[in-house]
Amino acid sequence: MADLVGNILVAQSGGPTAVINASVAGVIQEAGRHPDQIEEIYGGLNGILGILNEELIDIQEEKRNTIEGLKHTPAAALGTCRYKIDFKKKPEKAARDMDRLFEVFLAHNIRYFFYVGGNDSQDTAHKIHEQAIQRGYELRVIGVPKTIDNDLPHTDQCPGFGSVAKYNATTVMEIADDVSSMTTDDGSCCIIEVMGRGAGWIAASAVLAKRLPTDAPHVILLPEIPFNEEAFLARVKATVDQLKYCIVVVGEGLKKVDGSEFSADSTRLDSFGHPVLSGAADRLAEIVTEKLNTKTRTVKLGYAQRCAAHYASATDAEQAAACGGAAVRAAVDGQSGFMVKIVRTQTNPYRWTTGLQSLADIANVENLIPRDWLSEDGFMPNEKFVEYCRPLIEGEVKVPTEGGLPKYVVLDKVLVEKKLPARV
Amino acid sequence: MADLVGNILVAQSGGPTAVINASVAGVIQEAGRHPDQIEEIYGGLNGILGILNEELIDIQEEKRNTIEGLKHTPAAALGTCRYKIDFKKKPEKAARDMDRLFEVFLAHNIRYFFYVGGNDSQDTAHKIHEQAIQRGYELRVIGVPKTIDNDLPHTDQCPGFGSVAKYNATTVMEIADDVSSMTTDDGSCCIIEVMGRGAGWIAASAVLAKRLPTDAPHVILLPEIPFNEEAFLARVKATVDQLKYCIVVVGEGLKKVDGSEFSADSTRLDSFGHPVLSGAADRLAEIVTEKLNTKTRTVKLGYAQRCAAHYASATDAEQAAACGGAAVRAAVDGQSGFMVKIVRTQTNPYRWTTGLQSLADIANVENLIPRDWLSEDGFMPNEKFVEYCRPLIEGEVKVPTEGGLPKYVVLDKVLVEKKLPARV
Repeated sequence: MADLVGNILVAQSGGPTAVINASVAGVIQEAGRHPDQIEEIYGGLNGILGILNEELIDIQEEKRNTIEGLKHTPAAALGTCRYKIDFKKKPEKAARDMDRLFEVFLAHNIRYFFYVGGNDSQDTAHKIHEQAIQRGYELRVIGVPKTIDNDLPHTDQCPGFGSVAKYNATTVMEIADDVSSMTTDDGSCCIIEVMGRGAGWIAASAVLAKRLPTDAPHVILLPEIPFNEEAFLARVKATVDQLKYCIVVVGEGLKKVDGSEFSADSTRLDSFGHPVLSGAADRLAEIVTEKLNTKTRTVKLGYAQRCAAHYASATDAEQAAACGGAAVRAAVDGQSGFMVKIVRTQTNPYRWTTGLQSLADIANVENLIPRDWLSEDGFMPNEKFVEYCRPLIEGEVKVPTEGGLPKYVVLDKVLVEKKLPARV
Repeated sequence: MADLVGNILVAQSGGPTAVINASVAGVIQEAGRHPDQIEEIYGGLNGILGILNEELIDIQEEKRNTIEGLKHTPAAALGTCRYKIDFKKKPEKAARDMDRLFEVFLAHNIRYFFYVGGNDSQDTAHKIHEQAIQRGYELRVIGVPKTIDNDLPHTDQCPGFGSVAKYNATTVMEIADDVSSMTTDDGSCCIIEVMGRGAGWIAASAVLAKRLPTDAPHVILLPEIPFNEEAFLARVKATVDQLKYCIVVVGEGLKKVDGSEFSADSTRLDSFGHPVLSGAADRLAEIVTEKLNTKTRTVKLGYAQRCAAHYASATDAEQAAACGGAAVRAAVDGQSGFMVKIVRTQTNPYRWTTGLQSLADIANVENLIPRDWLSEDGFMPNEKFVEYCRPLIEGEVKVPTEGGLPKYVVLDKVLVEKKLPARV
């Protein structure tokens, strides 16, 4: 079983992160160490969507320096997509897509497939693994975890999260220094909106900016804890009364008590049918201004937080690359149908390794913050959360610069000759 | 005249920046080199407001490492304020304030006063200089330039601007990589709102993210150029048609053709009577979504951009410190009533020095971008702007870290014993 010889295909899926390319670099560099089993190394452009279009690139045509540079380059160097193969809602289209995928795999003798992505992408990887078995097509499928949301189950954390936590905590710290240094008689409030639709890991991680109990952030509003306006306003008022300023961090997916989205913009849906969220900070600012008459400003970090490779976590980047490497080793060893996970073996000092978890356990399960990692009022992660999160932001990725700006790499993307008729 | 002996007072005013503390460090370190004229070094807390309250701290009580650390610490370490001594609108209050200020100066034998700030603060420095002459109180007043807005006249640039330009251009580059790597059939648009009420220097500086003509940003909307909806939409559409994505940068102070504020939030006024702006990006996103049916997201960097010391420009920080040093040398040499300015002596390779400009020429004059530094359609700064701006973002300030986050310093702030009755 361990002697499967063929080509590998690696692709990226879902929202990019600061370190998703490090995982691809990990896959590629490890693949190069198994010439007895791995012949060609291909990259799939734009995730499943590009593979359906037979848009593969030849990684051997890339400079070794470029591959190494992926370890500090944000966004998805291969391109990415949000594309769901949905057997429940669109069974015929899903079946056609699967047929096409396996035609592409066969045409290019793809025997190893690595998909770097979050919940939806691991679901896709799982389906491809199952289909390969059903079709009797020898293929080893390993998922590589990626999501800033940190909501994949079974893995201690998800590559991408540590970097957004580091950038956001830094930003909260800097904004707090800024706001607290400006004297206004009536005090002021700044509300910082961060990503996180269902899970509040990103918002919660801003607690790392706290060194002293009076430090910012003073309130963190999580999607997991229904918004309590009265308690929130009381907390803001008490903070402004004490410190003359208050820094609030809010996850974009904050919910009302009835479970509906707090922010105004919940009527639009993305391609997976999830509501598109924005405006939680602005809505909160309206409430604070109206009810407390406190000068309030908002910051919406948006995409900036998930691509801030200029201040990425070295621990995160290292883990992202290690997950890619572990995926290849597992596949070469004969495994399929797993996602690589990160296993914490010790917290103080921090030690970790990688492991494998069945994709069946991963797909579409959302890992929320344990309730007992939060204060009773739900406004602040407690020591358990901090102990968990602190090591993930350690270390700075060294990014070369040119003209005062980060120097990121771009793949040459030499296309592999197509062997199939165009997709219909 | 050069033998004036006494104490110095340094204070900060207006919005903080990533490098305003570097100017204070420059003042303090240079002051230490003139023991024959300078006896005590005091810092005024919270700008003029703290000085009126006789809140002075003894800088000699601070560790030398803390003062050195100010060179990489954002926000206003001494505290800052927006406080106008307004002889036109509130002559009696202004006269009382001036009397009190000179009481404080006399009580603490302040003979050298350095005020680090922007337009309004230089106006205050100018008034204090004039009052000193009128009152026959021997005082040397030198302004130290500071403003992210880069709108002070006569100086080649303003310390604080280079760092926000560097951070914003980096962010635009990273967001562009992120957005362009996500394949969506209909294309997408991201609108990034940056600071800049009257002058568009900050928004314009995002052009530095461009390496290739097709690179982001694709449209920059400046407060200097009235918003032309039709031309804007055409530009966004053409970009999305060509590249599948479009990155727009907008200065918060964008104006309509009739000169009124473009953003919705123009009804609130700050303490100087300027309109409080926000929401330009959200308003633009509504227009793009409605008229072009293009998926659009917004980012509002807000305060994050002016305190991002974790990626500050080394050139900017060096100039900020140099301006502080030059201010002290000028005062010790007998000058008063000037602001230090930065003089560009050569662009390629970049060379600069400091000079002096009468505060009378500075106060309340707003330096806008020359029209011939912009493209004809006003959507993009041209080569003249780029040649001007490029050197200002060169180099990275080395910031020590602790636990994965920047390690910024905090002053101990040992208060000087008060000698006057409390301000009434």
